[in-house]
Amino acid sequence: MFKAIVDADTLRTTLDSVSVLVDECKIHLNEDGIEIRAVDPANVGMVDLELDASAFESYEADGGLIGVNLSRLEDIAGMADKGQLVQLELDEETRKLHIQIDGLEYTLALIDPDSIRQEPELPDLDLPARIVIEGADISRAVKAADMVSDHIALGVDATEEHFYVDAQGDTDDVHLELTRDDLIDLEAGDAHSLFSLDYLKDMEKALPKDAEVAMDLGQEYPVKLHFDIAEGQGRVTFMLAPRIQSD
Amino acid sequence: MFKAIVDADTLRTTLDSVSVLVDECKIHLNEDGIEIRAVDPANVGMVDLELDASAFESYEADGGLIGVNLSRLEDIAGMADKGQLVQLELDEETRKLHIQIDGLEYTLALIDPDSIRQEPELPDLDLPARIVIEGADISRAVKAADMVSDHIALGVDATEEHFYVDAQGDTDDVHLELTRDDLIDLEAGDAHSLFSLDYLKDMEKALPKDAEVAMDLGQEYPVKLHFDIAEGQGRVTFMLAPRIQSD
Amino acid sequence: MFKAIVDADTLRTTLDSVSVLVDECKIHLNEDGIEIRAVDPANVGMVDLELDASAFESYEADGGLIGVNLSRLEDIAGMADKGQLVQLELDEETRKLHIQIDGLEYTLALIDPDSIRQEPELPDLDLPARIVIEGADISRAVKAADMVSDHIALGVDATEEHFYVDAQGDTDDVHLELTRDDLIDLEAGDAHSLFSLDYLKDMEKALPKDAEVAMDLGQEYPVKLHFDIAEGQGRVTFMLAPRIQSD
Repeated sequence: MFKAIVDADTLRTTLDSVSVLVDECKIHLNEDGIEIRAVDPANVGMVDLELDASAFESYEADGGLIGVNLSRLEDIAGMADKGQLVQLELDEETRKLHIQIDGLEYTLALIDPDSIRQEPELPDLDLPARIVIEGADISRAVKAADMVSDHIALGVDATEEHFYVDAQGDTDDVHLELTRDDLIDLEAGDAHSLFSLDYLKDMEKALPKDAEVAMDLGQEYPVKLHFDIAEGQGRVTFMLAPRIQSD
Repeated sequence: MFKAIVDADTLRTTLDSVSVLVDECKIHLNEDGIEIRAVDPANVGMVDLELDASAFESYEADGGLIGVNLSRLEDIAGMADKGQLVQLELDEETRKLHIQIDGLEYTLALIDPDSIRQEPELPDLDLPARIVIEGADISRAVKAADMVSDHIALGVDATEEHFYVDAQGDTDDVHLELTRDDLIDLEAGDAHSLFSLDYLKDMEKALPKDAEVAMDLGQEYPVKLHFDIAEGQGRVTFMLAPRIQSD
Repeated sequence: MFKAIVDADTLRTTLDSVSVLVDECKIHLNEDGIEIRAVDPANVGMVDLELDASAFESYEADGGLIGVNLSRLEDIAGMADKGQLVQLELDEETRKLHIQIDGLEYTLALIDPDSIRQEPELPDLDLPARIVIEGADISRAVKAADMVSDHIALGVDATEEHFYVDAQGDTDDVHLELTRDDLIDLEAGDAHSLFSLDYLKDMEKALPKDAEVAMDLGQEYPVKLHFDIAEGQGRVTFMLAPRIQSD
């Protein structure tokens, strides 16, 4: 059983966070909210998303699991105007999801969850550095790095107490430094890892406007990005595996 | 003889209503206004448009007939700013249309009307149902149907007194119901017909913002869409032939 | 030695004026400001640009010459928000330009000036007619001419005291006349020359909004367009060679 009503913007933000990595996903319809975990086909980027029941206008579920085509669901959510409510109801018999938006009914065929790539376990890493940064600063760093390279180095200098971004192109370089004052928070520990810019660009697209992003970093370790959605009633964690440094 | 001055927006709305169906058309330059009738090459969609002399700032004509390339005329009308006046004058000798917009003169070569597809007669159908609906609701229905199918069913349920839209895709379906309260008016009579979505999408593009559209419907019969342009001093009727129901 | 701070908008306007003609250019870093002269590969369009030291927030230079990739420099300038300052500093050792925008450092590899096409001398022509015209009117004329032809004739009728634009297509023609009243200024002298529309379109793109453009014209002679940038602390001259009239 699953029946819920949710604000269209909340639904869109939720779907966007996952669709930057995968086309299809499993959604756990838990009693206390939904959960989505997914990993991209290359096993480089992962997402773990929770949206609490309290993020919905109304929510009833008893622990089911469905498989959905994300871009199709995004198209439907895109039919709603800002602030409109989207009603979701699972038909257990037909394995279809009935979606209603102000008189408009959409019947979405679900995907067999077993046919969808297995869900990842996001490893519990003990990373030495954590910064809290405005999403806009991530956007700026990613855009600048993209002018010169396909890779981006993210690091923290524990001595100088700053977070930095480095991108080295064939002829040109980009460097960005943000001190404790430029950041929302900084727990300094030496960290430096190289990442694929394509993945980070995709993850950046999923950041809500005005997002505060907590970033955990290590030495040639994955980076984790944590941010809230749905006014704190939902949480997203992205994890991105590092590239081997090529010096 | 033909000499007229018209607001650029009125001219653009007029041309758009016809250009969604055909590239070239004949324009009747009657004493009391212009009239355009056209049918698309596949004989599926028709338009009948009248723009009264009173819709023009000034208007003089004595019953001529010209053939025009619509996209070219639209480009020229597009040169005018919002609210600017467009002056049109026919040179009978050279068969060219002189168009002036604030110092800019464009000389448009006309097309021999005999070389343009014959004008249709829109049949006088006695259709059992009529609804009056906001153009925005048509846009919404067309956009939703387009997510799942190439066809769209439009119908009226006389007993339940509602207008409905149905689109059936390979896996997903869309259904929209508008009751008497959701509509501007409803004259109920049972009606249900299937249409090509491409045509309806084109016609929808021609609807002025905030248009009220009267829609006549029957059982596997054409649909007629009537709406005003130029603040009621012009009238457009679209007619769209039904597709044979494939069950 | 070169070290300067400049408003991002001023930098962007400067670069745009040159990049419409060439991909790479030499920049003279004079004591009293920068100067750029460039000619397109076909030798048809030329630009001469001066930006005074006073157009910069701060400016120090001692007469060097650098070669730059314009689109790369435009991308970097595009990273700055409206009103943000861009800091430029030349590293003589490495022949790289260090560019800073609010914590973001970009290291741009310069191009050997000797590998860039030689700078043109804009000839000192004694042209019989000069008009001063709003940039918006040039945009309008170019857009209208583009509907019918690849060429555009610009002329002044000394007797009638008007500036005119003519474009002749295979079937349609465009004509625009601006009298003394429509222009900011008119020094009448008979002039008529035909130009490639592609070049004039490119030059038009570089005109700042609300630009006043002084245009010098002759009989089958080049046209010169002069306009200010950076609130009068910079000057741009475009020169465009005529096409041979084909009658």
